[in-house]
Amino acid sequence: MSISPAPAAATGQSGAYATIADVERAAARLKGVAHRTPVLTSRTANALVGASLYFKAENLQRTGAFKFRGAYNAIAALDEAQRKSGVVTYSSGNHAQAIACAGGLLGVPVTVVMPQDAPAIKVAATRGYGGEVVFYDRFSESREEIGQELSDSRRLVLIPPYDHDDVLAGQGTATLELLEDTGPLDRLYVCLGGGGLLAGGLLAASRLAPDCEVIGVEPEAGNDGQQSLRKGEVVTIAVPRTIADGAMTPYLGARTFPIIRERVHDIVTVTDEELVAAMRFFAQRMKLIVEPTGCLAAAAAFAAHDEIAGKRVGVVLSGGNVDLTRFAALVGAD
Amino acid sequence: MSISPAPAAATGQSGAYATIADVERAAARLKGVAHRTPVLTSRTANALVGASLYFKAENLQRTGAFKFRGAYNAIAALDEAQRKSGVVTYSSGNHAQAIACAGGLLGVPVTVVMPQDAPAIKVAATRGYGGEVVFYDRFSESREEIGQELSDSRRLVLIPPYDHDDVLAGQGTATLELLEDTGPLDRLYVCLGGGGLLAGGLLAASRLAPDCEVIGVEPEAGNDGQQSLRKGEVVTIAVPRTIADGAMTPYLGARTFPIIRERVHDIVTVTDEELVAAMRFFAQRMKLIVEPTGCLAAAAAFAAHDEIAGKRVGVVLSGGNVDLTRFAALVGAD
Repeated sequence: MSISPAPAAATGQSGAYATIADVERAAARLKGVAHRTPVLTSRTANALVGASLYFKAENLQRTGAFKFRGAYNAIAALDEAQRKSGVVTYSSGNHAQAIACAGGLLGVPVTVVMPQDAPAIKVAATRGYGGEVVFYDRFSESREEIGQELSDSRRLVLIPPYDHDDVLAGQGTATLELLEDTGPLDRLYVCLGGGGLLAGGLLAASRLAPDCEVIGVEPEAGNDGQQSLRKGEVVTIAVPRTIADGAMTPYLGARTFPIIRERVHDIVTVTDEELVAAMRFFAQRMKLIVEPTGCLAAAAAFAAHDEIAGKRVGVVLSGGNVDLTRFAALVGAD
Repeated sequence: MSISPAPAAATGQSGAYATIADVERAAARLKGVAHRTPVLTSRTANALVGASLYFKAENLQRTGAFKFRGAYNAIAALDEAQRKSGVVTYSSGNHAQAIACAGGLLGVPVTVVMPQDAPAIKVAATRGYGGEVVFYDRFSESREEIGQELSDSRRLVLIPPYDHDDVLAGQGTATLELLEDTGPLDRLYVCLGGGGLLAGGLLAASRLAPDCEVIGVEPEAGNDGQQSLRKGEVVTIAVPRTIADGAMTPYLGARTFPIIRERVHDIVTVTDEELVAAMRFFAQRMKLIVEPTGCLAAAAAFAAHDEIAGKRVGVVLSGGNVDLTRFAALVGAD
């Protein structure tokens, strides 16, 4: 598969990176459209780690994940002509559904490039929101190239899953709301795949909790972000094998990495076993369905009890889109 | 088993029934102690029924169910001498854990009468909160009698699961919060077993939404409440066979029925199949684990689309305590 980042020209990105002003603009656009998801607490979780944990439940967001924020913000930022032409994206996951849902709400035609072997339920969900699906062969074709071709031939605006200023600014509103609700925190855990949620969250924290240590969390099998931070440049890895399917990205974005490098406190990793244990905790004790990727931040917080003892710690639960049969198989047997 | 109501003397109940003032007093006691659980909405659910649904997520309450409210309120209402002696209750379900948790928080010794064959996990949870467990043989002994004996011999205050003014007043705070958050609603669905949540909710609605039609919901297999309402007196049935284990009560309470009879709009029933469908909906679309009993109100709302079209409708999700293996078996296979 091709691993070159989306060309900046197609996505209308300029030189300067996104700022807190972009996140605040996104918050205004999302008001009354995105759910203001609850911040949940659990005495059991607090007792486990000896800290005060605040869980931002983005699994309860529209389309089941934070991705709705960035997708809606990016489409809402388009001008009239661009909206009329429509948008294109490539994703087989939460971003596809988010773009299709946001496009439907805003009356903007949406095309989604998906692998031929994408689960039927995801194809149906995207079409259910009114999106057009274009298939590709993931073994012989590049989704980025097909997205680019569609962008060129049909004059569609390409909105990639994370490497886009309005997308990452939209994702940042999750952290903005969390910090508005809790006040400044000592530490914040945010998962990363391509880095949109983390980069946006860092911008929000820079305004509302400048002393907060923000920690990015990746699956152990796919620690390209950690490697990139250590090396000071984007490191590309093979597609990682992990149950955290939302974090199988092999490299950070050209628009997200500079923000992350400048502001993040550290990037840590957790194992798939820790993700399953966290999923089970949320199901048993907090009655929440959180997808494996959505458990990354929590699993890191649960493992950090010595470091965070006595502190006020935020944890973003990024999403809850996991097939129920798979969920049952992962958490059903103790 | 014995099916006579708990003697009023043991529980300190007097002639006059609970009022909205009791619910408001309970709200003051519970402030900062119980979770103010979120009111959640779902466009998918609204589209399904053609109404605006507001779900009060008591599955996210402490101990996983609304029962914490009534248990804490009842213990907090005791005087110093009573607190020192301690309390006793009989329950193998959510009320036992709620009483044990509340007793632990308030430093009041708790004794729980449980069947010998109660699931080990429930016994462990009750003991984990610091409760003492006294077993009885459900085939040859009466839990009410044993509770009464313990109350007499050890001078313990008996706090039954629902037939108690402070218990039902505490449960009413769930509806109080819902209506505070949403403003007046056209209709409200609340499940009933012994009727504590419904009676308390009716008192709350009488103040905050006097025109709201409040509908009680029971499992089809155990419609003693519906029969009682039709007949104008408490009807006792055989212990019903239903997956709604929190609504397997064979009769309404002497303290709850008069309030229900006076104020409820109607009592309707749903089937176990409808409960499973609702559980699956909450898991798939709203990422929530709701126990079968917790789905009663929602299942009735989902079935009422013609009646509630265009209306603003509240739905109390009463709890989320379902064994994960059982949950997986119920919702895992489509």
